[in-house]
Parts: sequence; structure tokens; C-alpha cells
Amino acid sequence: MKKLNNKSFTCVGVNSTIAIIKSNRFQIEKVLLITNSKAAKDQKLNRALKALNSNFIKQVNGRTLSSKFKTQGVAITFSGDLILNESDSYPNQKDSCLLVLDQVKDPQNFGQIIRTAECAGIKGIIFSKHHSVPLTETALQISQGAFVNMKFYEVTNIRNELKKLKKNNFWVVGLENSINASPWYSIDYSDKIAIVVGSEGSGIRKKVLEACDFIATIPMQGITNSLNVGAAASAIVFEMLRQKLEKK
Amino acid sequence: MKKLNNKSFTCVGVNSTIAIIKSNRFQIEKVLLITNSKAAKDQKLNRALKALNSNFIKQVNGRTLSSKFKTQGVAITFSGDLILNESDSYPNQKDSCLLVLDQVKDPQNFGQIIRTAECAGIKGIIFSKHHSVPLTETALQISQGAFVNMKFYEVTNIRNELKKLKKNNFWVVGLENSINASPWYSIDYSDKIAIVVGSEGSGIRKKVLEACDFIATIPMQGITNSLNVGAAASAIVFEMLRQKLEKK
Repeated sequence: MKKLNNKSFTCVGVNSTIAIIKSNRFQIEKVLLITNSKAAKDQKLNRALKALNSNFIKQVNGRTLSSKFKTQGVAITFSGDLILNESDSYPNQKDSCLLVLDQVKDPQNFGQIIRTAECAGIKGIIFSKHHSVPLTETALQISQGAFVNMKFYEVTNIRNELKKLKKNNFWVVGLENSINASPWYSIDYSDKIAIVVGSEGSGIRKKVLEACDFIATIPMQGITNSLNVGAAASAIVFEMLRQKLEKK
Repeated sequence: MKKLNNKSFTCVGVNSTIAIIKSNRFQIEKVLLITNSKAAKDQKLNRALKALNSNFIKQVNGRTLSSKFKTQGVAITFSGDLILNESDSYPNQKDSCLLVLDQVKDPQNFGQIIRTAECAGIKGIIFSKHHSVPLTETALQISQGAFVNMKFYEVTNIRNELKKLKKNNFWVVGLENSINASPWYSIDYSDKIAIVVGSEGSGIRKKVLEACDFIATIPMQGITNSLNVGAAASAIVFEMLRQKLEKK
């Protein structure tokens, strides 16, 4: 697994390719387009490709390529800085919302969370450098291009970052199954908010949880009651959005 | 891809194995447990296994097995009827909530939706027989055992089923990006509700949409704005739950 700082990455699919080109954040190294594929005929994609020097676009025959690429019809290779670090400042508008991933392990979950967060208006994602999945090609791919509109902060100590955020008037809400927690909708998300979600197996670590201002819980209504971290993140970020839209 | 009616299926992992044994819904054919694996030492799993005749449990050496099984340490093979059809009656309590999948194509999404729905107290999932992913082993696996607590209805005509539900005093809410739609939180989910979500690419089909009483939308706040169907389902079912819990 490679990290994205100035290394080349490849994503497949029309949505990702358009998003990456349009963002102007990356150096495009090449676009491979399978001749006569559905992607090659896609009007939005063709409009986006016009922004590139045609030397970077190569029509290829699908036969020798990976099945994933074949299904999608287009692949884009790009490089650039995507990950910021703790010395970089966080978005700090009056209703900024950040998401904090405390040791999320699965790149599929990371990618889905990026995708969901972007739709809900989250401005940045903070994740830990250690014991977490880094921002891999799989996570970027799963995000369906949403990563281009997100700021990523890779930090060594989540707890310290939460303290910094609190000094900047962020409220920190941890999402965790706990009897001492409030229902997720009873918390006011209208100010600057950082929402913390934990790892797939064991949730938020104790020391990180202690740094939260509020603990939110989603009371489970079933028997198995195993909520995926991506689905839990979706529930809480759209509750945040509901509150913001209702106040307008 | 096989359907589950009286065919054998295999799921791996401690959570799935415990859920399948505890449900008493299925005939257990065998449990393979890798000697000295973490699963073999899991106390909850060992308690659940005591309910089985020991002839069905086999200790195995992991070396020859698939990597997925090896990671999980346990696999269960079972059979039984899981899918009901349109002649079977739907859950019909005064606050029943059903989920309707109009041509969801991806077994990962299907599995995640089952998992999320179970946590939110959804009693049944209706899905179309044609142009949809059936209830595959992958979907069951991804649901992490949640499928054992869910009723599944495989129907030939979604639109007709919605009409039947409406006759039984269900309100039908379609989740769709549309300018003529209401914000998802402005709809009252406190009565009997069927929530319809559409396929990954093209949403809910026009004829199905016409059969909905309400169209709900989640206003997108980003640029890419590609919300996964599982994340969208999570947002709406937990909004339903919020309303129910707040009314109590």
C-alpha cells in the first residue's frame, strides 16, 4: 500500500476520472481509455478530457487489461500532494465540520466514509498515522472521486489534535456505544464540530474518548446489532446536516 | 450465484456463526473451526457451539483453506428457507417499517443494507426478482449475521407490492434526488412506512416512483455528490428511528 504524497496513483471509472481532472489539484500523468467502451462514449467524460493535453490520453484495446479496468473503460494515473499534516491548519469557518477516524482499519470503510462525508458537507478528515489504514488507492477508488474535494490530515496523536481543535472552539463528539452516552440526535451540531468514529472492532480508544466533549450513541434496535462504521458515520453526519438545514 | 431456499450456504466469522446458530432458523450442516485460532478460543462462540451436536463441529488445520476462512478461523454451512414471496404477509404492526430495494445490483450494498436495517429496527426487506442482485452468499456474509433477523420478500413486481402495502395503510416513501422532493427529515415516519431506495446507477424506476406517496431527497452539499445507496439508506432509516425515539 502506497501513500499519495507525490507518488503516482491510478483510479478507474468515469466518475473518478472526471473528478480528478476537474479538481486541478493533481498532475495528470495519463488517461487510458478503452476504444469503443461505454466510457469512451460518455459525454461528460469527453468534455472533461478536453482540458487535458491530448498527449496524455491514450486509446487502448481492453484485452490485456485488468478486469476492473475493463468493466469501467477508463483509468487515470495522477500524482500530487493529498495529505496534510498536523502543522497545517484545519478548516475554521463558523460551521465547519470535521470527521476524525480513530484507527479505522479497512480501506473500503475509509473510502465509503470519504464519499459520504463529501456529500454531507464535511470539510476535512483527520486520521491517525499508526494502526490505521493509510489513504490507499483502494480507499481513493471506493470514494468515487470524492477525495478530490476533501482535506486529509494524517496525525500522530489524535488526542492532541482534539485538544487543539477544542482550543479553536470546536466541540468534539465521539460516536460510541455506551450507556453513559446521549442519543446521537440530542447533540447540537450547529457550531464548529469534530465527529470522532472508532475502529471496526473496538471503537474509539479510551484516551481519545476522554478528550471528547460529548459521547453520542445510536441505540440499536435489532438482535445482531453490528453497525458498520461507514453506516454509523452516515447516520451521524446526516443528522448534523439535518440540524443545519432545519436552522436555516 | 445461488439463492438460499433449501440450498447450502457457507458464512465465515465468529459473528455470523453465532447469529446463525442462535436464530434456530436453519439446519446447521457443519461448523469448521481452525485449531488454535482466535475464533476457537472465543468464549461467546464456544457457548453458542454447545447448542449443536458435536458431530457437526470439526476442528481443522488452516493450511489448506481459503484465506478468508483462515483470517476468520470459523466457517458455518447451513440450509433453510430464507426468502418469502409475495403471497406471504408483511409485518403489519402499527409502526412497522419495511425497506424496498428497487434493483440494487451490488451484493456488498445489499449486505450492508441488511446490516444497517437490522440495527435500525427494520422488520423486512422487499427486493425485485429481476434485474437485482439476489440474496447471495456474499450479501449474507457482508451482513455479519444480521440476515438471520430479517424477513426477505422476493417479488416480481415492486409497483404492485407498493400498492398492496398502501391498501394495508403503509405510507410509501421513495428516496430519490429530485427537485420536486422534500428533505428527507421533513417526512413523518411514525406510522407504518415502506422506504424505497433505487439502483446504484439510475435510482428508482419511474413507474415505482409514481407509486410512492412521498419523494424524499437528501440535499447534497459537496461537489462530487455521489452518495452510495447503503449510506443513503443509513441516513434515512436512522432519521426514521430518530423520529420514533423522540416521540416516545
